[in-house]
Amino acid sequence: MEYTEFFADRVKSMKGSAIREMFKRMADPEIISLAGGNPASELFPGDELSKIAGKILMTNPTLALQYGTTDGYPKMKDCAIARANKVNAYNAERDAVIIMTGANQGIDLTAKALLNKGDKVIVESPSFIGSLNAFRTYECELLGVTVEDDGMSMEGLEETLKNNDGVKFIYTIPTFQNPTGVTMSLEKRKKMLELASRYNVMILEDNPYGDLRFSGEDVPTIKSLDTEGRVIYAGSFSKILSPGMRLGYIIADAKILEKIEILKQVNDVHTPMLTQLMCVEFMKKYNIDDYIAKNRELYGKKCACMIENMEKYFPAGKVKWVTPEGGIFLWCECPTIKDITPVVNACLEKKVAIVPGSNFAVDMGAPSNMFRLNYSSATLENIAEAVKRLGEVLTELL
Amino acid sequence: MEYTEFFADRVKSMKGSAIREMFKRMADPEIISLAGGNPASELFPGDELSKIAGKILMTNPTLALQYGTTDGYPKMKDCAIARANKVNAYNAERDAVIIMTGANQGIDLTAKALLNKGDKVIVESPSFIGSLNAFRTYECELLGVTVEDDGMSMEGLEETLKNNDGVKFIYTIPTFQNPTGVTMSLEKRKKMLELASRYNVMILEDNPYGDLRFSGEDVPTIKSLDTEGRVIYAGSFSKILSPGMRLGYIIADAKILEKIEILKQVNDVHTPMLTQLMCVEFMKKYNIDDYIAKNRELYGKKCACMIENMEKYFPAGKVKWVTPEGGIFLWCECPTIKDITPVVNACLEKKVAIVPGSNFAVDMGAPSNMFRLNYSSATLENIAEAVKRLGEVLTELL
Repeated sequence: MEYTEFFADRVKSMKGSAIREMFKRMADPEIISLAGGNPASELFPGDELSKIAGKILMTNPTLALQYGTTDGYPKMKDCAIARANKVNAYNAERDAVIIMTGANQGIDLTAKALLNKGDKVIVESPSFIGSLNAFRTYECELLGVTVEDDGMSMEGLEETLKNNDGVKFIYTIPTFQNPTGVTMSLEKRKKMLELASRYNVMILEDNPYGDLRFSGEDVPTIKSLDTEGRVIYAGSFSKILSPGMRLGYIIADAKILEKIEILKQVNDVHTPMLTQLMCVEFMKKYNIDDYIAKNRELYGKKCACMIENMEKYFPAGKVKWVTPEGGIFLWCECPTIKDITPVVNACLEKKVAIVPGSNFAVDMGAPSNMFRLNYSSATLENIAEAVKRLGEVLTELL
Repeated sequence: MEYTEFFADRVKSMKGSAIREMFKRMADPEIISLAGGNPASELFPGDELSKIAGKILMTNPTLALQYGTTDGYPKMKDCAIARANKVNAYNAERDAVIIMTGANQGIDLTAKALLNKGDKVIVESPSFIGSLNAFRTYECELLGVTVEDDGMSMEGLEETLKNNDGVKFIYTIPTFQNPTGVTMSLEKRKKMLELASRYNVMILEDNPYGDLRFSGEDVPTIKSLDTEGRVIYAGSFSKILSPGMRLGYIIADAKILEKIEILKQVNDVHTPMLTQLMCVEFMKKYNIDDYIAKNRELYGKKCACMIENMEKYFPAGKVKWVTPEGGIFLWCECPTIKDITPVVNACLEKKVAIVPGSNFAVDMGAPSNMFRLNYSSATLENIAEAVKRLGEVLTELL
C-alpha cells in the first residue's frame, strides 16, 4: 500500500532532522562528534541517581509506578519553580507550571495551543531545528529575524512586526542561543518586550542553557522583565541533570497553562513518575548548583580548548566566530564560500561530524556557509583532534 | 491579560477530561474510586524494578542518562515486537515500531500524521475519552458507531462509510473496550477489514487490555488479520507492567512510521531512557507472562466480586450490563432513567466515585443513563463496600 493520500498536509513534505539522520551515520564509533547537543556524560551523577532510584522503587513503588497527574508530581513542580525562581521566571501571583517530558514537549504543545494554520511565528534566524520543526507541524509561517552578536536584530523584529498581521508569538532562545551561542543584551530584551506589547504578540522564551555561563555576567531572563504576562517560559533539566530523563517545564499565566494541560493530557497523559521522583530526591539530597558548577567549569575548559585549536588550525582570517560566554555551541561562518556542504562531507571522511548551517535555517535547504560546533560532549583530547582535522579540511577547501 | 485571542481554534472550547477533574475532587482519601483506569498497584514489581533501576544507573549511567534515539532504544523495540508477536500484530516484512511515552502518545501522533482539519474519524460510541480528545485537537469530525455486545455495529459502520466522504481512519479498541468492556467478535473484525478496504480507510487498533483475559477464548487482533497494511496498532505496557513508566508503542508499515517518527521527534525527542532500559531488563530477567497471569487472576476475582455485589445490591431488573471476559471495566445502563448525573453525585456524597457515560460520548455533554465501573484498582473489600453504597443510591433514585 502507498499511504500518501492518507497523510495530513502537515507531514506530507516533512523530513526528519538532518542532525538525527547524521546521528545514524555516526554509529561508527571512530567518529568524533561535534554535531549533537549532548551534555557531558562524564559528569552524570549515575551513582547518586542509582541509589535514589533504587530507594524510591523499594519504599514507594505505587507512587513511582502508578498513574500520576497531568500537570506533574507536586514536589517536582516545586523543583521546577525553584529553578525558575533563580532567574525570576516565576510570578507567584498569576503563573502556573506544568512538568513536561522534556522542554521540547512544552514548546510543541505551546505551539499547538496557540497556532492556527496560516498564523505567523517570528523566530531567530538561525534557530533550533527541533522547535522550528515543531512549529511547522501546525502549518504556520515562520518569519526569520537575523541574529546579531548581541542577539536578535531589534530593527529586524520591528520591521517584521510592522509588515505582518497574524503574528501569534516570537520564539527566542535569548541566552547562549542554539546554534549561534550568542546572548541577547538586556537592552534588546527590554526592547523585545516593548515591541511584543505594542504589536500585541506573545513571547516564547526557551532557556535550556541559561545555567551554563562560564564567563561574563548573567543577563535577566525576558520572563523576569515581563510585567504583563506576555512571556511563556520553557525550562529544562536536560543540560543541568540528564537529557535522557526528559524533564522540562513550562511556566506561564495559569489561563494559558490550562489549555496546554489539556494538550499534555491527550499527548502523554503525564511525564513518567520515576524520573520526576528521582529529580525531586536529587535536588533534596544534593545541591544541584554545585553539580551545575562542575559542568560549567568543564564547559568553560572545553570551549577554551576548542577555540585554542581553532586559532591554531583554522586557515587565518577565513573563519569568523563569536566567543560564547556559556552554553554548549560555537557558530562559525566562512565568508569566502557559499556552501559549507563539501566541508561537512570531507570532515565525515576524516571521521569528524559537524552540522551545516542550513539545518538551522528558516528557509530550509538554502545553502549556508556556516556550521555549528558542540564542545560539551567530546573529551578535551577529542575536541583538539577533531578541530585539527576540521582545520585541515578548511585549509584545503576554503 | 486575557489570552482568548491568542488561542488556536482547537483549544478555544476544549475542557479537560472530567475524569481527571474528578481525580482532583478525589484527593479525599476516604473516597473509594471505581472511576479511574488504574491497574492494581498491589502487584507492581517494585522490588524487582528497584534492583534493576539501581543496577542500570550504577553500571551504565551514560546510556540511561544521555539522549537516546527517537524511535526507541533498540532492545526496547525488540521487547515491543515480542509482545506484538504474541498476538501476530507485527509483520516483519513491512512493519516498523516506535516506542512511545505511553500508547496515548502514539494515538495522538498517529492522528496528527493523518488528520487535516475537517477530516472524519469513525469511532466506537462510547469510546475512550483520551483518544477522542486527542482526535478533537486536530479539528476533525468524529462519527460515532454504536457498540453492541459483540463490538462495533457493522451495519452502523457500513452506513457511516457509505454516507461520508473524507473518513481517514476507524479507531477501535476491539478487545475489552473502554468503557464498555466488550470484545469484538472475529466475524466483525474480518468485516471491519473488508469495509476498510472497500472504502479505502485506515484502521487504528488500540489494544491496551488484550493481555488481560480471565475467561473465554482469545480473539485474533485485527492487525493479525490485515493483509494489506491497513492497520496501525497501538500497544501498551501500562496495564501489564506499570502505567507510571509511560511505555507504549506503535506498529505499522514503515512508510507510515517514518512520518510519525518526525512528529515524535518534535514532540518529546525520545521516550525517557531509564524506563525503557528497566522494561528491557525486567523482560530479560523475569517472565512477564507470569506476572501478567497474576494480574489476570486478580482481575478475574475482582470482576467476579463486583458482579456478585451488583447482583446482591443493585435494584432488580433496573441495571443492565455485559459481563466482561477481561480488561478492567464494566459498563452499566439504567434504562428507566435519562440522566445518571444525580446518581453519580449521590455516590460522591457516599464517598464512591464512578464515571457517568456522558464522558465517553462522541456528542459531548449529551445526558447519558450509563456509567462505567473499574474493578482493577480497588481492593476486594472496597469493591464490595462501594458497590453496596452504589446499590443503595440506585435503589433510592431509580
